[in-house]
Amino acid sequence: MVGGGKDAFIGGVHRIAARLDGQFELVAGALSSTPERSRDSGQALGLAADRCYGTYAEMAEAEAARPDGIEAVSIVTPNHMHAAPAIEFLRRGIHVICDKPLAATLEQADEIASAIRQSKALFILTHNYTGYPMIRQARDMIAAGDLGKLRVVQVEYPQDWLTEAAEATGTNKQAEWRTDPARSGAGGCIGDIGSHAHNLACFVTRLKVESLAADLQSFVPDRRVDDNAHILLRFSGGARGMLWSSQVAPGNENALKLRVYGEKGGLEWAQEDPNYLWFTPFGEPKRLLTRAGAGAGAGANAVSRIPGGHPEGYLEGFANIYSGAASAIRAVALGQAPDLSVLPGLEAGLDGMHFIAAALRSSQADAGWVSL
Amino acid sequence: MVGGGKDAFIGGVHRIAARLDGQFELVAGALSSTPERSRDSGQALGLAADRCYGTYAEMAEAEAARPDGIEAVSIVTPNHMHAAPAIEFLRRGIHVICDKPLAATLEQADEIASAIRQSKALFILTHNYTGYPMIRQARDMIAAGDLGKLRVVQVEYPQDWLTEAAEATGTNKQAEWRTDPARSGAGGCIGDIGSHAHNLACFVTRLKVESLAADLQSFVPDRRVDDNAHILLRFSGGARGMLWSSQVAPGNENALKLRVYGEKGGLEWAQEDPNYLWFTPFGEPKRLLTRAGAGAGAGANAVSRIPGGHPEGYLEGFANIYSGAASAIRAVALGQAPDLSVLPGLEAGLDGMHFIAAALRSSQADAGWVSL
Amino acid sequence: MVGGGKDAFIGGVHRIAARLDGQFELVAGALSSTPERSRDSGQALGLAADRCYGTYAEMAEAEAARPDGIEAVSIVTPNHMHAAPAIEFLRRGIHVICDKPLAATLEQADEIASAIRQSKALFILTHNYTGYPMIRQARDMIAAGDLGKLRVVQVEYPQDWLTEAAEATGTNKQAEWRTDPARSGAGGCIGDIGSHAHNLACFVTRLKVESLAADLQSFVPDRRVDDNAHILLRFSGGARGMLWSSQVAPGNENALKLRVYGEKGGLEWAQEDPNYLWFTPFGEPKRLLTRAGAGAGAGANAVSRIPGGHPEGYLEGFANIYSGAASAIRAVALGQAPDLSVLPGLEAGLDGMHFIAAALRSSQADAGWVSL
Amino acid sequence: MVGGGKDAFIGGVHRIAARLDGQFELVAGALSSTPERSRDSGQALGLAADRCYGTYAEMAEAEAARPDGIEAVSIVTPNHMHAAPAIEFLRRGIHVICDKPLAATLEQADEIASAIRQSKALFILTHNYTGYPMIRQARDMIAAGDLGKLRVVQVEYPQDWLTEAAEATGTNKQAEWRTDPARSGAGGCIGDIGSHAHNLACFVTRLKVESLAADLQSFVPDRRVDDNAHILLRFSGGARGMLWSSQVAPGNENALKLRVYGEKGGLEWAQEDPNYLWFTPFGEPKRLLTRAGAGAGAGANAVSRIPGGHPEGYLEGFANIYSGAASAIRAVALGQAPDLSVLPGLEAGLDGMHFIAAALRSSQADAGWVSL
Repeated sequence: MVGGGKDAFIGGVHRIAARLDGQFELVAGALSSTPERSRDSGQALGLAADRCYGTYAEMAEAEAARPDGIEAVSIVTPNHMHAAPAIEFLRRGIHVICDKPLAATLEQADEIASAIRQSKALFILTHNYTGYPMIRQARDMIAAGDLGKLRVVQVEYPQDWLTEAAEATGTNKQAEWRTDPARSGAGGCIGDIGSHAHNLACFVTRLKVESLAADLQSFVPDRRVDDNAHILLRFSGGARGMLWSSQVAPGNENALKLRVYGEKGGLEWAQEDPNYLWFTPFGEPKRLLTRAGAGAGAGANAVSRIPGGHPEGYLEGFANIYSGAASAIRAVALGQAPDLSVLPGLEAGLDGMHFIAAALRSSQADAGWVSL
Repeated sequence: MVGGGKDAFIGGVHRIAARLDGQFELVAGALSSTPERSRDSGQALGLAADRCYGTYAEMAEAEAARPDGIEAVSIVTPNHMHAAPAIEFLRRGIHVICDKPLAATLEQADEIASAIRQSKALFILTHNYTGYPMIRQARDMIAAGDLGKLRVVQVEYPQDWLTEAAEATGTNKQAEWRTDPARSGAGGCIGDIGSHAHNLACFVTRLKVESLAADLQSFVPDRRVDDNAHILLRFSGGARGMLWSSQVAPGNENALKLRVYGEKGGLEWAQEDPNYLWFTPFGEPKRLLTRAGAGAGAGANAVSRIPGGHPEGYLEGFANIYSGAASAIRAVALGQAPDLSVLPGLEAGLDGMHFIAAALRSSQADAGWVSL
Repeated sequence: MVGGGKDAFIGGVHRIAARLDGQFELVAGALSSTPERSRDSGQALGLAADRCYGTYAEMAEAEAARPDGIEAVSIVTPNHMHAAPAIEFLRRGIHVICDKPLAATLEQADEIASAIRQSKALFILTHNYTGYPMIRQARDMIAAGDLGKLRVVQVEYPQDWLTEAAEATGTNKQAEWRTDPARSGAGGCIGDIGSHAHNLACFVTRLKVESLAADLQSFVPDRRVDDNAHILLRFSGGARGMLWSSQVAPGNENALKLRVYGEKGGLEWAQEDPNYLWFTPFGEPKRLLTRAGAGAGAGANAVSRIPGGHPEGYLEGFANIYSGAASAIRAVALGQAPDLSVLPGLEAGLDGMHFIAAALRSSQADAGWVSL
Repeated sequence: MVGGGKDAFIGGVHRIAARLDGQFELVAGALSSTPERSRDSGQALGLAADRCYGTYAEMAEAEAARPDGIEAVSIVTPNHMHAAPAIEFLRRGIHVICDKPLAATLEQADEIASAIRQSKALFILTHNYTGYPMIRQARDMIAAGDLGKLRVVQVEYPQDWLTEAAEATGTNKQAEWRTDPARSGAGGCIGDIGSHAHNLACFVTRLKVESLAADLQSFVPDRRVDDNAHILLRFSGGARGMLWSSQVAPGNENALKLRVYGEKGGLEWAQEDPNYLWFTPFGEPKRLLTRAGAGAGAGANAVSRIPGGHPEGYLEGFANIYSGAASAIRAVALGQAPDLSVLPGLEAGLDGMHFIAAALRSSQADAGWVSL
């Protein structure tokens, strides 16, 4: 693992997700931005002393050289620090599992893309919400034609944790780096969570956003990035949509919600209650599909662990990305073609970067339409 | 009553709303578009034969001349038939209670406005959703500063009844006139329900929409008006918002929903569960305020009839407009100033017409910004 | 109307319910317990002076003698004052619509029963929750066999308004008479709302309670009647059930809830959200049936006024009892057989009285089984 | 691990729970009822060959002798197979983590109790629902007096998976052993899930059930154990309650729900939406407390991993028991006193066994009262 030392939030999540299904074991790391803190963090996690590296470069070199070197590396640094380690590990043929968004800038994204294309190693981007079983179910139902031709896609991801200037208190590292354009990229809310909403809508519908008109705001005084985004979407194939993401909507924790409507029916899903998927065939009563319940199909059941009514949550959804990565890595090791059909990778990463860039460009042009 | 004969939906609603609190009695009507059907409808409703009029003009003349003539008239015709009767009754000093939107065109709206300004009679527009107690509560809380300065307003009104071409079946009169530009105005979904969403957002927040960018669609083949509207909103004072209205979203009956977020807190309300109002002071747990419950204030309680937990619904909310109108009319009769502070009238009507017109204009200009 | 003067709660509800569908007009009353207050209340409601009676006996005599005398009387007095006026009006052939429970004591109930059997007039008991459209739907689905043979019936009606000793404050008339055995009968919570729960369960399932074991408590010090009831139920045909009613459950307003499970499926309904009925055919996803929505049948639609998604509430449900009564009364007037199939009357009233008595008897015997 | 081989459900859950927080590693097992299948299962899970044991007795002996022997054993066999291995490992000083209920019979339970009292090793019973953060929150709030003196406890655990005779299909091993008195004990539904409901109510309230009256039924023909339980409860201190558990309630997956009401307020929690806790201080609006949200206290936060709005579920709750066990085991290893205040152990186990026995005895006596 690169990044994810003390005080980091997402590193701990990746470690649980990697471990949950018993597919990965953490054996080496360059966990912090200074060699000393990296080693401290590694020892705190019980890594062998000789695999607590000071930098990602040392780690890549040493692990590539070991006969029992790591199979894959998780990169969980702030966005601007994705590209360099990703490229280094890919260059050495080590599979990369990288936190999203792909990078802080389009330039970095392109460099990663280039490295991926030149490497035999896999690159998996942890767009973790795609791992929820009922999201897989929704995607499969749409592919099966249960909604008919799609017309309307409503997606939103409101939070409230940046309602006040948390980045100015000196005590909230998350708030600091996520509102610092140098570390998170020019997008604030749009990059952090708007990109999740965009990814989820595209993953489920298998549509691409062709153009968008974005009205971004920064409501909190002195904030350097957007904290609210209102976006009109036009999808390939003619569907229209709206995307709202916000970090200043009191009463919303992580209220990611997706609704898709087509000629024949509608689907509704909310991340905070992820075991439920509401399906309405037009003209019939609404149905509540549940994870592992009567209405769940093979794609959802493949990533469910326990019976319906015993909720699986965010960590299980995240773990499904890791377990999917494990299967793919194992296939590669056996010389087989890995199944990447539901695993987010480079394409999702570049789509996300272009989405963020387009939203920023549109907003600067008074929410005019911008093509992706 | 003018309009509201057999096969009409909204006329029956107005009659129940007028009667519910015992403030109005239906005594005269010109209920249909032909004299014969008007009289039949009147007799079916038990009106005296001499007060079943063939046309609104006859009715206005005769009732104005009677010593026991009507105090007020309800106009519940299709939109293009609001102006003529409204002007006629106003001219004769009879109070007018009119279904929304104000008219089918801006020209008609201006004519009504002119008649209102020249009449001593009152003009009430039945933007009925403003009558819900918890909507009054939300408006009062915002006025009291419970949310602080407002930032974000999300309003939506999805339905699904026009998912298929119901207007083409020959059996659905509602669908026919509501998708006929000659009768409903150029706006379809945007005029029918988008205008409700706009009105509700403005009523609760006391903000005006300053400009908008609207992407309207007509998804059903051969439909002559829009059936889905995606709109970005910029409000006076700096708040930003989104409005979605749709008649092609399977699984939505009348899912009008309003969410308002400010510097200090958030409010959420859904029309299908109207006795609940969710309030989150930033940093505290979400609270469920209920009609007539512990958190309800004077404004809400003034329009509640029964204790909390015994739900009041759409008809009671609608009746609150009628009962408010009755109080205002009674004040006028006594030579007192009527309380029009929460009753929608000309201003709301014109705002609505300009909103619809702006949305259409914006959409024709590829969703460019249009000022109101 | 007998009872329902100033300060009375349920009288106002009956008046709205009677008026809502335009089937009844209030023309006469003996509204309070003293002649003077009766007349004051009548005038406040706009009754003609000669039809504001001092006592129910005067009213019955005078109205029976008038050529335009009342068709039906609503009796909305405290429970111990149902029998005398009911008997008097029935004796004179005037239809009676009576608030529930039937009476304060079994003796009074038997006297009413006797009067009903000797009268040609109708007797309707306002078990108003049976008027909700989705309750009619549930009853029809069970009759149609959608659940198969019934096994389990869970019904509950918790409130919280008597959590503290509201009857001791000297300001809460409702609390005073409802906790006074002389006026409400020996049952407190069990008589006031437990009887509603019992009635609803029986109405929907068409089963009778054969025996019960009841553990009643009076949690508030010095309270003279029960304020919480826990009851085991055994139904005709072998189904088993539980009934919980409480007036000391903070957070519950009028949380009446019914759940019925059979060999083939389950139904769930909650009074506070009455437009929804949850139906699960065993082995299939849960379905949300809505009032006037796709899954609603003829019985529910017959008592719906407006389209699905526009909520109808408590008053509309109550009005359905009055409108049903109006139809029945009209049939009688025409010499036809009235349709009493869904209207609660004497049988429901006696069942309720026996239920209350059995619960009290069981509780006194340490919750031993008592047959009904 | 003892038990939990192929086809077993709960073994896999225990393994994930043990692994989730990185506190335990599975290194040895006697996983099935025959030596051969045990070894196959062990190898499938990647255990070293010499630690795949044929029987629990072999395992206990060998592991106790190894310098790197197991710290703790998980026992996840059917109920009748808890006692023998538990006693064996306890005798050898190896900590035991055992699935609930404690045993199939009171005799076995007493034998385990005796072994626990004679051992220095810890005994933890996986009453996993006590591990949910919002259950810890509820327990802490009640202890802090937020509800005042408790009055009413409503607990229920309905399921539907045994609505039909799943045990008779020959394909459902879960259904087979859980309805076989020889393997699960005399209680069916009452032992499997009623005991969870009982435990949860007692854990949260810190009250004991003093007596109960239970009406158990076996609705499915030829079923050998109860599949529905209706129970009246009387708690120490005067609170009263009801417990319903069922396996024949279509539409319920694992709908465990707890509601507690006191003189000052009420709490409501549902297992299927475990990140929410509803709290109503009497006379104030209901509040939604969320895991890791504004209203969550130290006890809940201690067992939360990720921010509010990112749901944790059943596996995380289960893992909290394992992580608590790990802390306790570590304390013991250091010669410190382990914190067992929130960890279910022998006392909870015996309470559960006596509860099941009392319910069976009461039901045989026509639901008469039985003291615990």
